[in-house]
Amino acid sequence: MGSLDANPAAAYAAFAADVEPFRPLDADDVRSYLHKAVDFVYDYYKSVESLPVLPGVEPGYLLRLLQSAPPSSSAPFDIAMKELREAVVPGMTHWASPNFFAFFPATNSAAAIAGELIASAMNTVGFTWQAAPAATELEVLALDWLAQLLGLPASFMNRTVAGGRGTGGGVILGTTSEAMLVTLVAARDAALRRSGSNGVAGITRLTVYAADQTHSTFFKACRLAGFDPANIRSIPTGAETDYGLDPARLLEAMQADADAGLVPTYVCATVGTTSSNAVDPVGAVADVAARFAAWVHVDAAYAGSACICPEFRHHLDGVERVDSISMSPHKWLMTCLDCTCLYVRDTHRLTGSLETNPEYLKNHASDSGEVTDLKDMQVGVGRRFRGLKLWMVMRTYGAGKLQEHIRSDVAMAKTFEDLVRGDDRFEVVVPRNFALVCFRIRPRKSGAAIAAGEAEAEKANRELMERLNKTGKAYVAHTVVGGRFVLRFAVGSSLQEERHVRSAWELIKKTTTEIVADAGEDK
Amino acid sequence: MGSLDANPAAAYAAFAADVEPFRPLDADDVRSYLHKAVDFVYDYYKSVESLPVLPGVEPGYLLRLLQSAPPSSSAPFDIAMKELREAVVPGMTHWASPNFFAFFPATNSAAAIAGELIASAMNTVGFTWQAAPAATELEVLALDWLAQLLGLPASFMNRTVAGGRGTGGGVILGTTSEAMLVTLVAARDAALRRSGSNGVAGITRLTVYAADQTHSTFFKACRLAGFDPANIRSIPTGAETDYGLDPARLLEAMQADADAGLVPTYVCATVGTTSSNAVDPVGAVADVAARFAAWVHVDAAYAGSACICPEFRHHLDGVERVDSISMSPHKWLMTCLDCTCLYVRDTHRLTGSLETNPEYLKNHASDSGEVTDLKDMQVGVGRRFRGLKLWMVMRTYGAGKLQEHIRSDVAMAKTFEDLVRGDDRFEVVVPRNFALVCFRIRPRKSGAAIAAGEAEAEKANRELMERLNKTGKAYVAHTVVGGRFVLRFAVGSSLQEERHVRSAWELIKKTTTEIVADAGEDK
Repeated sequence: MGSLDANPAAAYAAFAADVEPFRPLDADDVRSYLHKAVDFVYDYYKSVESLPVLPGVEPGYLLRLLQSAPPSSSAPFDIAMKELREAVVPGMTHWASPNFFAFFPATNSAAAIAGELIASAMNTVGFTWQAAPAATELEVLALDWLAQLLGLPASFMNRTVAGGRGTGGGVILGTTSEAMLVTLVAARDAALRRSGSNGVAGITRLTVYAADQTHSTFFKACRLAGFDPANIRSIPTGAETDYGLDPARLLEAMQADADAGLVPTYVCATVGTTSSNAVDPVGAVADVAARFAAWVHVDAAYAGSACICPEFRHHLDGVERVDSISMSPHKWLMTCLDCTCLYVRDTHRLTGSLETNPEYLKNHASDSGEVTDLKDMQVGVGRRFRGLKLWMVMRTYGAGKLQEHIRSDVAMAKTFEDLVRGDDRFEVVVPRNFALVCFRIRPRKSGAAIAAGEAEAEKANRELMERLNKTGKAYVAHTVVGGRFVLRFAVGSSLQEERHVRSAWELIKKTTTEIVADAGEDK
Repeated sequence: MGSLDANPAAAYAAFAADVEPFRPLDADDVRSYLHKAVDFVYDYYKSVESLPVLPGVEPGYLLRLLQSAPPSSSAPFDIAMKELREAVVPGMTHWASPNFFAFFPATNSAAAIAGELIASAMNTVGFTWQAAPAATELEVLALDWLAQLLGLPASFMNRTVAGGRGTGGGVILGTTSEAMLVTLVAARDAALRRSGSNGVAGITRLTVYAADQTHSTFFKACRLAGFDPANIRSIPTGAETDYGLDPARLLEAMQADADAGLVPTYVCATVGTTSSNAVDPVGAVADVAARFAAWVHVDAAYAGSACICPEFRHHLDGVERVDSISMSPHKWLMTCLDCTCLYVRDTHRLTGSLETNPEYLKNHASDSGEVTDLKDMQVGVGRRFRGLKLWMVMRTYGAGKLQEHIRSDVAMAKTFEDLVRGDDRFEVVVPRNFALVCFRIRPRKSGAAIAAGEAEAEKANRELMERLNKTGKAYVAHTVVGGRFVLRFAVGSSLQEERHVRSAWELIKKTTTEIVADAGEDK
């Protein structure tokens, strides 16, 4: 509608004095706007199943629909809501759709959304305890509750079993990447100190390690923290460990570096990789790293949530010997974005690198040492009251419902896996550990297979993914595991029921049949 | 109530099959929970004025009120709401209170809260364009709107005036610290390349600069990015520049480093420091930095919002010559936490350091180069739909109301300043640039002053702050400027009206009189 060569100066509207002064937080307005928003949310959840999961919009579509210059005068809130419904919603990828099977689901719940709403209305900035005592303490409490659900040792909790402060503790951050970054920095500084570095000069000798299946954000976090790209070791994995980190290979790499005069500094182990849900053996990794006094971080962003069920808890065995662990309730514990819980065994190692103490934040409570100032465990200073939604989720649903939710997702994934295994055109490529099924149209080995060789199989699977996603009735993503192009079917979107999984499978079968038919016609 | 030595295993409740399966996002439940939350918010805004701004709670108070073990079974949402009202609210520091004058206000509005609610319900994760096209495009649009309100040159916008993609662009981040960190990393990598560093070896030669009034988070961000603490230059400021950065001193420091074979890499200029709202001269700083090809970042976290008014825009003069600028609508543009807008003149310099390209995120749109994948301009991968609330604020209130809001706050601050100047027991310590007044009980020079000398003045002002804050009727913070202990009176909490400012002044006068009387009795 508008265009950017419109004179921006037009936005400098002269201030026309209204009769009423402007009250942006007038309680009646707030209630009225929020009721409209709640109506939208209600309608959205009622209808999202019928919306195309992946919209068929072209780059720039929205910029063509909405005005390119900011309005100079105010408009009823209904205008924004109308443009939201008519212009924004049609271009959304609907992560809340029960037909969303891509990436990992962003699970959510009524309690979490309500908690987030209240937090955004209170709008506290809890950088220090004094700046928001209840926000800090509720966050600490929620983290300790979650630590108990996960069966983490008391050494990671903010309160010891005796009720006093221990050396461990947690903090809620925005992303796993931030958890990696702050622990990398703490480990880096410790390694510089113990290797007798003059300032940061010794950073060129520090080495870090992770399996090649580790999330790319780890390698990015290493670069952010200043590690030398040449010293970031990506340890190869293979089918023999189901793409989990092989402790023997890790030991070999760390020993070779140590022998070469380098300083092994940090190992990242993943419980439930993003690519295929591989699990690195936490205890064995910790044992190897201990020989070099390297920091071990466990990234359990997705699968950590499953560990609230006793039958999955073994994936964390050995966690008492690592230095830090992070997991994201915004992935699989029904807590809307963003909520990544980082636990460290010795908070002083973290705060030693992250503490700031500007004059205007000084106060008696901080000076007393009796309180936690959460700004000293994160990148920034400002922080939202994210503990509220996490606490509300646990308070309202309890361990029982949360476990039920995990088990229901896993059961649906198992159902999908069985369906795949029952059709010999397909294969499950790696063992299913949680609620992610990695499968593909198999290369021709028997008469039933439709794609000859790996190249053909990749082509057929790409075609399948693209056709599926174009229907708007399902959204699946892909990965490459052991050189094979694989479809990822991630179960768990919070509105999902078994019927959605079964419908998706029917669509996959039908689309595959069409691909076979089209391939036949092409010949 | 509970205690942490309760057996955590109790949390592993056996899964008792309910009649109804668990539906965490049932639309009727969502609506019901949200209506309760809206009622809470309405009551909160109606009553927050009467709540103590700063609660009188002791460390650990909440942990004594709430159970220390997570519940094993579910509970009605009303239970969480009851504990919120009875245990959490009494321990909150009420940033939304009109009697809050500490730090900077966290301004907010009905449109922003509604936008945040909808974003948390849609719960998209817009790491790539494809993962949420509308979320990416609305964020880009909102940033371009704001750039126009700020009078930023087109080189910082995502769209050029001709409608195509330029080299500039923006991204919404969580905090200013993150904006500093990612630009520091981009500048670091560029400096390493141009200085011919072998890997990161040359990092020991890179130097960074900021005025001594710069937010402490800048110095922390430098350390996070691996800069040598010995190479982080804090340039002294004084009353002669109203505590703004002196370009001559900057030049001297940069030249000395360059002469010593070091590589000046990055300068942070602040428009509106946290301590006293000092303003570094943006254009002059840019001119100095240009001699050394150093990156210039402008931190306008708070005062950037004021620059939407033509009468304040001169504080950004010269911005067309800097490399990046960040400002936080969550501070003064009525957008709830968190929302920091980072603009860079050449996005490729940022994405060159921050890009990742894992297999499972590859897609045609990204490959085409026609879209922005915002994950490549931030620390993490996951990201909330923060553009929605920012867009809703501008769409609903328009430039006119936003300017009115800024001007109203500044006018109230001016009123307070005049009241202070009218009482010769007090002095305004530095010129008021925006809506922050730095004042103090003045040391005795005339008969009217109550504190003899600087030490006495500090004692009296500390006493004043503590007594004020203990009343619960006002919350002010302090700083130290030029060695003087000063009270910060920040106007602008969104529910604030002139009567609150006048009441706070009455309280300040009354409390000061009491302090004088008590001091007299002590003698």
